[in-house]
Amino acid sequence: MGTHPVSSLTPLLAPRAIAILGASEDFRKLNGIPLKALLDKGYRGAIYPVNPKYTEIAGLRCYPTVEDIPGEVDLAIVTVAHNRVIENIRALGRKGVRAAVVFSSGFAEVGEEGAMRQRELQQAAREAGVRLLGPNCLGLVNTFDNVMASFAQFALGPTPGGPIALVTQSGALGTATVGVGKARGLHVGYLVTTGNESDVGFVEIMREVIADPRISVGAGFIEGVRDGTGLVALGQQSLDLSKPLVLTKLGRTDAGAKAVASHTGSLAGAENVFDGVARQFGIVRARSDEQLLDYTNAFAYACSDGALPQGPRVGILTRSGGAGALMADHAFEQGLRIPDLSAETAAALKGILPEFGSVANPVDVTAVGMFNPGVICDAFERVLNDPNVDVGIAWMGSTREVDFMVQAFADLRARAKKPFVLAWSGASEAAVQGLAAAQVAVFRGPEPAVAAVAALVRYAGMRRHWDTDRAQRRIAAGQVEVVRAGLSLPTAAGAVDTVIAAGLLAAQGIEIAPLALATNADEAVDAAERLGYPVVLKIESQQILHKTEAQGVVLSLRDAASVREAFEHVVANARRYDAEARIDGVVVQKMIGHSDAVEMVVGLNQDPVFGPVVMVGMGGIFIEVLKDVSLRRAPVTEAEAGRMIEDLRARVVLNGVRGKAPVDRAALCRFIAAVSRFGAAAGPRLGELDLNPVLVTPEGVTALDVLLTLR
Amino acid sequence: MGTHPVSSLTPLLAPRAIAILGASEDFRKLNGIPLKALLDKGYRGAIYPVNPKYTEIAGLRCYPTVEDIPGEVDLAIVTVAHNRVIENIRALGRKGVRAAVVFSSGFAEVGEEGAMRQRELQQAAREAGVRLLGPNCLGLVNTFDNVMASFAQFALGPTPGGPIALVTQSGALGTATVGVGKARGLHVGYLVTTGNESDVGFVEIMREVIADPRISVGAGFIEGVRDGTGLVALGQQSLDLSKPLVLTKLGRTDAGAKAVASHTGSLAGAENVFDGVARQFGIVRARSDEQLLDYTNAFAYACSDGALPQGPRVGILTRSGGAGALMADHAFEQGLRIPDLSAETAAALKGILPEFGSVANPVDVTAVGMFNPGVICDAFERVLNDPNVDVGIAWMGSTREVDFMVQAFADLRARAKKPFVLAWSGASEAAVQGLAAAQVAVFRGPEPAVAAVAALVRYAGMRRHWDTDRAQRRIAAGQVEVVRAGLSLPTAAGAVDTVIAAGLLAAQGIEIAPLALATNADEAVDAAERLGYPVVLKIESQQILHKTEAQGVVLSLRDAASVREAFEHVVANARRYDAEARIDGVVVQKMIGHSDAVEMVVGLNQDPVFGPVVMVGMGGIFIEVLKDVSLRRAPVTEAEAGRMIEDLRARVVLNGVRGKAPVDRAALCRFIAAVSRFGAAAGPRLGELDLNPVLVTPEGVTALDVLLTLR
Repeated sequence: MGTHPVSSLTPLLAPRAIAILGASEDFRKLNGIPLKALLDKGYRGAIYPVNPKYTEIAGLRCYPTVEDIPGEVDLAIVTVAHNRVIENIRALGRKGVRAAVVFSSGFAEVGEEGAMRQRELQQAAREAGVRLLGPNCLGLVNTFDNVMASFAQFALGPTPGGPIALVTQSGALGTATVGVGKARGLHVGYLVTTGNESDVGFVEIMREVIADPRISVGAGFIEGVRDGTGLVALGQQSLDLSKPLVLTKLGRTDAGAKAVASHTGSLAGAENVFDGVARQFGIVRARSDEQLLDYTNAFAYACSDGALPQGPRVGILTRSGGAGALMADHAFEQGLRIPDLSAETAAALKGILPEFGSVANPVDVTAVGMFNPGVICDAFERVLNDPNVDVGIAWMGSTREVDFMVQAFADLRARAKKPFVLAWSGASEAAVQGLAAAQVAVFRGPEPAVAAVAALVRYAGMRRHWDTDRAQRRIAAGQVEVVRAGLSLPTAAGAVDTVIAAGLLAAQGIEIAPLALATNADEAVDAAERLGYPVVLKIESQQILHKTEAQGVVLSLRDAASVREAFEHVVANARRYDAEARIDGVVVQKMIGHSDAVEMVVGLNQDPVFGPVVMVGMGGIFIEVLKDVSLRRAPVTEAEAGRMIEDLRARVVLNGVRGKAPVDRAALCRFIAAVSRFGAAAGPRLGELDLNPVLVTPEGVTALDVLLTLR
Repeated sequence: MGTHPVSSLTPLLAPRAIAILGASEDFRKLNGIPLKALLDKGYRGAIYPVNPKYTEIAGLRCYPTVEDIPGEVDLAIVTVAHNRVIENIRALGRKGVRAAVVFSSGFAEVGEEGAMRQRELQQAAREAGVRLLGPNCLGLVNTFDNVMASFAQFALGPTPGGPIALVTQSGALGTATVGVGKARGLHVGYLVTTGNESDVGFVEIMREVIADPRISVGAGFIEGVRDGTGLVALGQQSLDLSKPLVLTKLGRTDAGAKAVASHTGSLAGAENVFDGVARQFGIVRARSDEQLLDYTNAFAYACSDGALPQGPRVGILTRSGGAGALMADHAFEQGLRIPDLSAETAAALKGILPEFGSVANPVDVTAVGMFNPGVICDAFERVLNDPNVDVGIAWMGSTREVDFMVQAFADLRARAKKPFVLAWSGASEAAVQGLAAAQVAVFRGPEPAVAAVAALVRYAGMRRHWDTDRAQRRIAAGQVEVVRAGLSLPTAAGAVDTVIAAGLLAAQGIEIAPLALATNADEAVDAAERLGYPVVLKIESQQILHKTEAQGVVLSLRDAASVREAFEHVVANARRYDAEARIDGVVVQKMIGHSDAVEMVVGLNQDPVFGPVVMVGMGGIFIEVLKDVSLRRAPVTEAEAGRMIEDLRARVVLNGVRGKAPVDRAALCRFIAAVSRFGAAAGPRLGELDLNPVLVTPEGVTALDVLLTLR
């Protein structure tokens, strides 16, 4: 156990002396709570109330201004009205105070006038050399050092230190959640509410606290991500440290994003991009505050010795066959497996369990467990130790033998070599706290226990991939540099000529069905003869991007006469569609088909937060109607591309359905990875790349259409 | 408030005198707990311990046999070893005892020997005139009359009466769940564990207890449904009574079903059929024990005055913008709507809330609600009363003003005209119980609150449809009778000749693309000329049901020569495919296409539990890979058919995507309804009907292929 490493945020997170600007003697008020909490908890540094109205508060001398304080001050808690915040920050600068927590509201969250005030505040803090948490935040708590720089109710009760750091853009939800966690024995080392983030943001503070050796899990609520690169770095850091990061994103849906925008003025960001980045960089997403706590619980206690599940095989022990079936249902839905137990385990269980129990997984000790609770622990240990089992779940209902069970599972925790969790329906708060103290993760019922185990397994997979992909990631990054060095993109913004775009991609090994531009019917026929029939003709115009809509595409042309006729036809259609459009000619492309082909879509987008992202989806209705796509930040390794494919609901189509042969997945992975490297190399110049459709066959991958735009 | 209506189950559920066979003086044991619980709770009837080992237990005279008891006995609790149960049941018959609860294990759950013992028991009970709960059950509790015929821990603590009836095939999970509910102020009037259901089953007992006027909600865990018709009748009864029925089915997935089978020997039944029947007959499904309690809570308290939400528009009030966004996310995902509030409400809220609060829905009172909690209730009442709002959710975190908030929401509950729920993160058990006592539904956080509101809205929709469809349901039932009377099905089992099947369906207004059977090439050409080109040829053989696999189909034949050639071709292919098959000829069918067509699948199956069920799904990969289908018990009304279509994930395709015109949904509904009536009329004779594909266009609906099998 170490202490907080020193950085520019040290005065904020681990201050040696604290001033409270606008301190009140009414300990029930926002500006009174921090002083009370600091005093009650025995904060060991100096505390300086500042308020010209008082000479003394609670036996402490109260100063008229911060500059009147005799000693050095690391952190100021600012509780004054919004129109007095800036002058106070300037005074902090003069005093040499390096950090401030600003509770005051009335900044960016109240519209344009407030936003202007916040920009002024930001400027003033920068000039004064003060790092700023807030404004409009509920402050922070560091329970290791009893830094109670918050007006949340949470700061007032007992706050034992713990291995969890919770950072939250939503102060009220975050503090309510740590309160619920506390009742379950889940204790935070840090609770930081970031408010309007005029200076210190979610990513910076999380990177800081997760580096603390006393912290083993980071948890957070985020409403919007501004610093995409920072979030990626945070994910990478947490993977390298093997400290899971559990995030609940508020505003996943249109309705939620609208709510976020209306209360913070910030944008939630695209859900599917965030989801892809989270999968890529080891961030565990929790759907809700409750799930955030559940997952955090599992990470903190089910495997606090660092032994993550080696695989998805869960051994279930239950005192209720029904609860066993329910857990099996949830496990199946979460992608876990319920393995058969070894013959040795089954035989051993037969010796312990009654005749009417089940020695198949889920193992059911039946009501016998009510009258002889030792059977539960004994049988569970055998299930957990089975070589076919990676992680265990035991279910219990109400029991008279609470203390016995708590002790038995605490003992098992101490000697178990594999992670396990308890699902204890109706466990008392005392039992839950007792188990947490013994580092046993206990859940209120079957479903949250299974969900938490599934989160462990998913995270273990991400951790493994992070390690196994390491060399490939480095190579991909190097390849991106090579591509970038050789890449000569047209300087103009807008759509790139099809032939040029195809050439740029072909140079990166991204195969496009052979094509040529024809500016008259003769050239079209020449091209067709050269490429070989059948061919497709497509209108080429910067102004006509929806070629089908413009009736600018003709398929299946099998001879010169048809090509000639089609040329005139698509040009005439295009003119009718948009008389103003500059028509560059007609692209003649070899028509490729394959009876075992699957049509997919591969593309790139420029995300405002994360930069170039690569996308893959099933073609047609799957992508348009079901939004069955997977995204990642570019570049991706081939292995990561394979995981993108695994994200797709319709992925089974690639295995060959309705009598088709399976497609060449490795080629598809290479294709996606190459596209992603092109996107990363293009960097901020990239507008969009749309390869649609991409024909994926048992023999390889070919894009049939290409649309590339630059910025 | 009435009492239990008299029936053959009255001696079981509301006995006037109870005998305990195998009673023990050790109150910690299975055979001691019921006596202790009956005594502790002050059961008002006579209690007769029976055990030759004692002359007295706990001051009560103990009888050697049940026949030695002087007074009349309604119910016997049987705790003796399995090999002595049957003789005891016979003795009950001689004594005139009409009901028994059998705890004893060692029957059908332990394999074939036990199953035989259970059949003997069943026979003995029938002969003795004893209704039997169990064996292998945890018994039952009737808290109204303090009937504690259970050895569950639950029977020992305080058991105030309540409006919930919980019936469970899983005894341990059910009793654990009522225990959790009790801690939340959710009290049961009945808890019945049905065990092996050798006599009294889930459906019969639920129908009985839900009829009790003191019960307003039925909740249950089911592992397998044997009595499909009974379950349907139960659903209908609960709809007619306006008493919601919330069920958690254990064994929804293959893994769960395997677990169920291994611990009860019973089958879970097809998940998609059960789901369709639940939607059709107003059964609210809960995913887990936790959700079962949450939904039950909402039904018992959020609208115990019977005022269900009039629509899906939810008004949200929060003290945390983040919690508001989270609730908006969940609401959106659950199909709820977050309406704009009226200008009047917004103006009124502006007068109450601080400048930095949000008066848009979700309404955010901000941290001001911490210091002035009255604002929360005041603002929430205005949101709830807004004409755009159907149902309300208020979120709170920890507060000092617990008693104030409990009272304020209790008061609001008394005067509110619309249903509402609270999401109170970190509420104390006392607060939760206080609110429940005031009939306020309170949930532990945003997600369960939103899920519960969504359940209210879904149930309200099912209730409405149940009423509005009433006349149509009656007409449909009448039409089924008419169809049945006129239906002349081939007497043989197996596949029906295509021409005959098409004729049978056409007579019910189910359009099949015109077709004819040809037994030689000349007949095929004649048929093609008569039907009009293009035509399709398909091999006709009872033994070849997978025609495409047998290369027995040729499409797009446009002239006599092609038809002639195709005839010989498909016959030759069929012979090669199966030399043993009897080939009846070749079906010639007019080939129908439409540029705006959507291919669907409509069919019928004979479900072992529910009888004929009708199915609709999107064609091709959607049904094969994504299993995107909806089922109902036949028959269905056209309105119900419309709801089947709404179940489909890909339903948006019917609105016209990729430039297509929307299809004729009304015609599709008529088609599905007609198919369902055919299925209901065919009844047990039906094997399967597969109409695949069915071409649905803006002009109408036509099946292109038909496969009908009979039993």
